[in-house]
Amino acid sequence: MKLFTSVHDVPSIKQFVKDALELKANPYAYQELGKNKTLGLVFMNPSLRTRLSTQKAALNLGMNVMVMNLDKEGWALETQDGVVMNGSTVEHIREAAAVMGQYCDILGLRSFPKLNNREEDYSEDFFNKFVKYCAVPVVSLESATRHPLQSFADITTIVETWTNKPVDSKPKVVLAWAPHVKALPQAVPNSFAEWMCKAQEEGLIDFKIAHPAGYELAEQFTTGATIEHNLDEALAGADYVYVKNWSSYKDYGKVLNYPDGWMMNNEKLKLTNDAKVMHCLPVRRDLELSSEILDGPNSLVIHEAGNRLWAAQAVIKAMLEKM
Amino acid sequence: MKLFTSVHDVPSIKQFVKDALELKANPYAYQELGKNKTLGLVFMNPSLRTRLSTQKAALNLGMNVMVMNLDKEGWALETQDGVVMNGSTVEHIREAAAVMGQYCDILGLRSFPKLNNREEDYSEDFFNKFVKYCAVPVVSLESATRHPLQSFADITTIVETWTNKPVDSKPKVVLAWAPHVKALPQAVPNSFAEWMCKAQEEGLIDFKIAHPAGYELAEQFTTGATIEHNLDEALAGADYVYVKNWSSYKDYGKVLNYPDGWMMNNEKLKLTNDAKVMHCLPVRRDLELSSEILDGPNSLVIHEAGNRLWAAQAVIKAMLEKM
Amino acid sequence: MKLFTSVHDVPSIKQFVKDALELKANPYAYQELGKNKTLGLVFMNPSLRTRLSTQKAALNLGMNVMVMNLDKEGWALETQDGVVMNGSTVEHIREAAAVMGQYCDILGLRSFPKLNNREEDYSEDFFNKFVKYCAVPVVSLESATRHPLQSFADITTIVETWTNKPVDSKPKVVLAWAPHVKALPQAVPNSFAEWMCKAQEEGLIDFKIAHPAGYELAEQFTTGATIEHNLDEALAGADYVYVKNWSSYKDYGKVLNYPDGWMMNNEKLKLTNDAKVMHCLPVRRDLELSSEILDGPNSLVIHEAGNRLWAAQAVIKAMLEKM
Repeated sequence: MKLFTSVHDVPSIKQFVKDALELKANPYAYQELGKNKTLGLVFMNPSLRTRLSTQKAALNLGMNVMVMNLDKEGWALETQDGVVMNGSTVEHIREAAAVMGQYCDILGLRSFPKLNNREEDYSEDFFNKFVKYCAVPVVSLESATRHPLQSFADITTIVETWTNKPVDSKPKVVLAWAPHVKALPQAVPNSFAEWMCKAQEEGLIDFKIAHPAGYELAEQFTTGATIEHNLDEALAGADYVYVKNWSSYKDYGKVLNYPDGWMMNNEKLKLTNDAKVMHCLPVRRDLELSSEILDGPNSLVIHEAGNRLWAAQAVIKAMLEKM
Repeated sequence: MKLFTSVHDVPSIKQFVKDALELKANPYAYQELGKNKTLGLVFMNPSLRTRLSTQKAALNLGMNVMVMNLDKEGWALETQDGVVMNGSTVEHIREAAAVMGQYCDILGLRSFPKLNNREEDYSEDFFNKFVKYCAVPVVSLESATRHPLQSFADITTIVETWTNKPVDSKPKVVLAWAPHVKALPQAVPNSFAEWMCKAQEEGLIDFKIAHPAGYELAEQFTTGATIEHNLDEALAGADYVYVKNWSSYKDYGKVLNYPDGWMMNNEKLKLTNDAKVMHCLPVRRDLELSSEILDGPNSLVIHEAGNRLWAAQAVIKAMLEKM
Repeated sequence: MKLFTSVHDVPSIKQFVKDALELKANPYAYQELGKNKTLGLVFMNPSLRTRLSTQKAALNLGMNVMVMNLDKEGWALETQDGVVMNGSTVEHIREAAAVMGQYCDILGLRSFPKLNNREEDYSEDFFNKFVKYCAVPVVSLESATRHPLQSFADITTIVETWTNKPVDSKPKVVLAWAPHVKALPQAVPNSFAEWMCKAQEEGLIDFKIAHPAGYELAEQFTTGATIEHNLDEALAGADYVYVKNWSSYKDYGKVLNYPDGWMMNNEKLKLTNDAKVMHCLPVRRDLELSSEILDGPNSLVIHEAGNRLWAAQAVIKAMLEKM
């Protein structure tokens, strides 16, 4: 594996999940693989879970890790070609990425969307240029439109916890939009949707998306999913509910009005098949998701965050094996 | 050891100091103990000595270290339960701490007091919640009311340097308040006082505290100490003078008026038994402590800072041994 | 080697370059040398290449690395003696440096000039005090007046790429001033000039400097170099062109007027002997140096940045060997 930016880089989710769970059972079995190899983590935006879990994943594999918080450094990068650089950008992404590639065997990059210009964000211009110019394998630590390490941890968590079930039974998974006060990217839901659609194709799950009108995700991520505008109907019989806010894709980056009743709570939980509740974190308590769920037996959020480690380790291991 | 937040976590200071000095003599003897174990250091406030010495201590023990400067990340944590999180806090401490516990075997936490509300600061609400929710052993890197790694290094320094003395002789140790321009926490003097009171109980030292009226520390930390409001009288015959400013506990967080003559200098030193002078650093030269002392033969401040490493290593070693 | 702050710390450039290229061929041959040794990197100013390459260099040698970004910490250091510290500086460099020396076997320090006061900057007061008080070997990561790790990488790059040439032939190297919108330090050109002057003495190269009138560097760095005010004449027959902006030394820290025609581009390249073009990066595209050169076959800038690693590794190895 030379690139991990979306589910399209993964031949088989089933196999990939198996790899992650094997690493969870035996975290230090591949320390020779990463010996004298260096992972560089480049953050254009803040990170807690991603930074720690990816760092730990690389350390488990015997690698060295170097972290660059470019958001904190005021190291503004130019991305356009043909610009006379007499303004505020101090370095072109062509040089910055190429130089980081000189010192690192694998690079991780986080780069959020600005949510001003849909075309620009969805072109993944910054991310793609970084990949092109750094000339080493790249792991997405969340880009403008996707967060594949999160989605990989999510499907791993679902497969791992779907135990003691009838042979060939499949969990019903619902992605449920939830309220928030800020305009959030679509990266997590886009990515979750495209991983779940592929997992559905592989026969691992059944997948539905529920959101208020106006919050439709881009179709490229949702093909194959059942989409509902009524949360209660979507939740009927659900085994896993993945709660997440996102801003509008159609009215790009906007927080639209929405009807009451989109916060997930114990009353909603009654509609489900005693569903496990997931969230990528950070979560706004009692706005997106009720405290009673988060502090109760149905919440998987901490377990799910823990699995970020094994997802990252499986990806980095796959890259090291191809070097 | 599962928790290190105060002297109450330490069964015997004498034994603990012995452990630290043995590590100083043989720093790399326990590298197998920390193999594949990760220490996470979480800073809600800046740090120089604590960050470097604790990092190095863990490396000496063969551990990996991951540092999170949450103060720099604008990652504001909610601590209250039952709050609808529609404001500026981005994550609840319940999730944030639990997630960090997923990736780390031991966590270190620094969290200063706000000095606005005594009850809130002295409840150690933030620190205690972090300990509760992270579910792994925690080392205090300075909390609202204590700085136990500093105090442990301090008593180690006193025991280490009290050599070539008559059998059963005990050094006279004085904690001496000193002026400052800013309102500083009571964490260092609280902690120093409670360690010295216990060291006195163990027969290691004699202990006095000197401060101007109005600067009384909370009684829970000073039980057993002789307290004086006259610096010159307190210094008579002292073997160690520990210089430190703190703001008022009674008139909480305030800088009160105080009489002249509280800065430690060579003239004051003449009153002592050629005392060694200590300070936790950073020190304001010629305000708290004179340059002539800091640059002279009686200063232990750099030696004392160096011992931070062995104190931290002894604590982390004790935690690793119980895993 | 106990100190690396300028070319004067290097007995033989030829031998030093040989060492760097041997490490490039065999990066992990000396991992026992750095075992249980710690490199501390102290940044008073931002860094990308220097931070990553020096970190990686130390890791290749088996060392641990601790990074302190003091510029981001608001940890303002006092450098003057005899000052009552009742202002904004929180710690004196005497204590701060000494403490860092307690936890690290080697320290690296970056400290830029303020460009307000030439005498102060050129005294290297901050850097020299840090070296004096920390009491361990120090590597300059760029000081007010020099950037020796950069210059070492530069000469290594020149020697490495000057292959398949007649015996005893020497490359013609030109340092060419270029425009910029900001007032930049003279550290890189000073340092490049003094390394090239010594390389010329050792018979490795021929060296010229080209800059507009008013941009003369301090003579201590340029003795032995041919200096031209006409770029086209300087470029005639050049084998390597080192492009770099700097602010005026004479009219200290100022951006002076300059005639047109100082940006390096393909037209200028025709005047040379198909010269390789170098730059320390970050580079302002189409202001200092044309995109057509940077994206073309004559550019060495990424290769040169890659060599920062081997230069740093050779320096740290030389220090470890003397411990």
